[in-house]
Amino acid sequence: MPVGTLASVKGVSQDILDELGVQILLGNTYHLYLRPGVDQVRTLGGLHRFMSWSRAILTDSGGFQVFSLSDLRKVSEEGVTFRSHLDGSSHFFSPESATEAQIGLGADIIMAFDECTEYPADSQRTRNSMEMTLRWAERSKKYFEEHKHEVPWGNDHVAPDAIVRGGAAETDELRSSESTWNGHTQALFGIVQGGMDLALRKESAERTIEIGFPGYAIGGLSVGEPRALTREVVEATLEYLPKDKPRYLMGVGTPEEIIEYANLGVDMMDCVLPTRAARHGLLFTSEGKISIKQARYASDGGPLDPKCGCRTCARYSRAYLRHLYASNEILAQILNTIHNLSFYLDTMQSVRHSIGLDHGELGKGARFLSGEQSQLKP
Amino acid sequence: MPVGTLASVKGVSQDILDELGVQILLGNTYHLYLRPGVDQVRTLGGLHRFMSWSRAILTDSGGFQVFSLSDLRKVSEEGVTFRSHLDGSSHFFSPESATEAQIGLGADIIMAFDECTEYPADSQRTRNSMEMTLRWAERSKKYFEEHKHEVPWGNDHVAPDAIVRGGAAETDELRSSESTWNGHTQALFGIVQGGMDLALRKESAERTIEIGFPGYAIGGLSVGEPRALTREVVEATLEYLPKDKPRYLMGVGTPEEIIEYANLGVDMMDCVLPTRAARHGLLFTSEGKISIKQARYASDGGPLDPKCGCRTCARYSRAYLRHLYASNEILAQILNTIHNLSFYLDTMQSVRHSIGLDHGELGKGARFLSGEQSQLKP
Repeated sequence: MPVGTLASVKGVSQDILDELGVQILLGNTYHLYLRPGVDQVRTLGGLHRFMSWSRAILTDSGGFQVFSLSDLRKVSEEGVTFRSHLDGSSHFFSPESATEAQIGLGADIIMAFDECTEYPADSQRTRNSMEMTLRWAERSKKYFEEHKHEVPWGNDHVAPDAIVRGGAAETDELRSSESTWNGHTQALFGIVQGGMDLALRKESAERTIEIGFPGYAIGGLSVGEPRALTREVVEATLEYLPKDKPRYLMGVGTPEEIIEYANLGVDMMDCVLPTRAARHGLLFTSEGKISIKQARYASDGGPLDPKCGCRTCARYSRAYLRHLYASNEILAQILNTIHNLSFYLDTMQSVRHSIGLDHGELGKGARFLSGEQSQLKP
Repeated sequence: MPVGTLASVKGVSQDILDELGVQILLGNTYHLYLRPGVDQVRTLGGLHRFMSWSRAILTDSGGFQVFSLSDLRKVSEEGVTFRSHLDGSSHFFSPESATEAQIGLGADIIMAFDECTEYPADSQRTRNSMEMTLRWAERSKKYFEEHKHEVPWGNDHVAPDAIVRGGAAETDELRSSESTWNGHTQALFGIVQGGMDLALRKESAERTIEIGFPGYAIGGLSVGEPRALTREVVEATLEYLPKDKPRYLMGVGTPEEIIEYANLGVDMMDCVLPTRAARHGLLFTSEGKISIKQARYASDGGPLDPKCGCRTCARYSRAYLRHLYASNEILAQILNTIHNLSFYLDTMQSVRHSIGLDHGELGKGARFLSGEQSQLKP
């Protein structure tokens, strides 16, 4: 899932995202809550209509950004008081208010409010944090169940349990053939925490499943721990998550990592890496990573990646991309981002192919979106 | 002509410029000479191939930027010594070296090296400057005639005297049907100076015509003088320029101005206004200028310009554009620039229609590009 923090994947218009075949985007609740504000988005019909994006959207709970971006945060059982990184103003997120915000934003998939345990953390701290995340998961679900029909969808959007049978193109047809909103709701996913402690991860998984969600995320990773440890925790946690529901690994990763984790059984991943790296001139290609700022590319008339068919590789040379980057031209960010997204999407396409899930035989994440998850039916 | 200073129209990829129907772009010799450098562009086949743009390109002589951007410039009869605005390094432009640079860049239309007389300037200063521009025009032409076959075009580009019969689409066909370079060259235009003195403008026009060029530009305007004076000088100068050759007014203007000057008989204009204003959130619409940063647009779900069919107006709301701008998202610059360019191109389309020059009956500028100017035939 490409990351569209503020209702925009930085540097790429929705027209191009459509063309790239992006099926789902991630938006950040913390950022959207601060700008343009949940009321603004809700009044305008929700995120889909606001940003003119008819395919799927997932919002995070805001928890991770509150922990990583805001100043002076104060965590209590009730929730988190934090100061905006923009203007220092004071705000409060609880399981209830974070869920309320996500209902107002109106993404297809929303996340329970969790505490992302810092790394390293001792055993007691990790358990306490995990226990609080479990209590917050229950409160998130309770609030969601009581308020899920407040989602701002009008006639122009169809929730994930009614859409996408066989791909994005059909989705668009299905959506446009729908003429009334028929009570479909968002899907609220639970998040497994437990730090790097495999026993706590198991307990967190089991007790989150007990609460019951249509999909499960593995949170609290990629927070500074060694890569081998990430993998160990992912593998151990996956064992306890139901195979018939989407399993979402948050904040991951490099092209190598997404292949690795997909092969372990992860269905969904999100990461700013392809887009952020692109803006810094770091490009992923079939020949490995390329830092386009290097002088060696100044006279290179060949395409960025000869095996890539994206708009960037089809038309522009490495020499031109290097010039744009060195000259700080906006077009550098645009063309680089298009390529990196294309490379990631191609990578996932290959993964689906290699595990026999392409062409109608979609992965669990896609099957989830296709409404084959009976748990989602109202 | 949209301005693509550094071989890129800031914020818009060439794919989109194609789609917008842009037929000619302007590149700045001063900027391209400094980055990526003329040798780099020449080695890679010239600007068209370098930036992957098969339609027409015009480069300025570098004179205007040398006067407006660089530090410590020193003008002599021989040329101008100046320091780069990037790193302070010292460089020298003469009529010969500026023409050499433009041959190396390989645009379709290139400009004689001139001195842009400052405003205000007294009578003697204005005459001296005009006289030097005339001597420089002769030297530019002499150098061009002796070196015009050094243009870096290979098999992939056809000069303006062989292309564009009836529009861009046919151009592309014609170009691709050409398989060898057949001796076509660039077109060197002369520039009329003379400050705000109408008698000097007349003399400059007549003596520039005597030297002989396939097209003529009016330079030295939009340098701080009142708008009424600009118009007076343009109108007076046009009288002395041949009606059967393209007449190019440099550095102009607002949508109102381009309509006004086109109606006076100007065939070509360039200005950074549509692109630069877009990046500052100033948008031109059929309902007047809009400053999209204003809070009044935060809840406005309507299109930017209901009468515009561009990608921006077709898909996104004012509320979304306002959010992107307020959040400093790159997409704001992209979508705003697409709209402003579309508005300018639509404006010129209307002008052509109103003076009966559309649909095969192109203006002089377009007819020039279509090879109907016998002066250009080798």
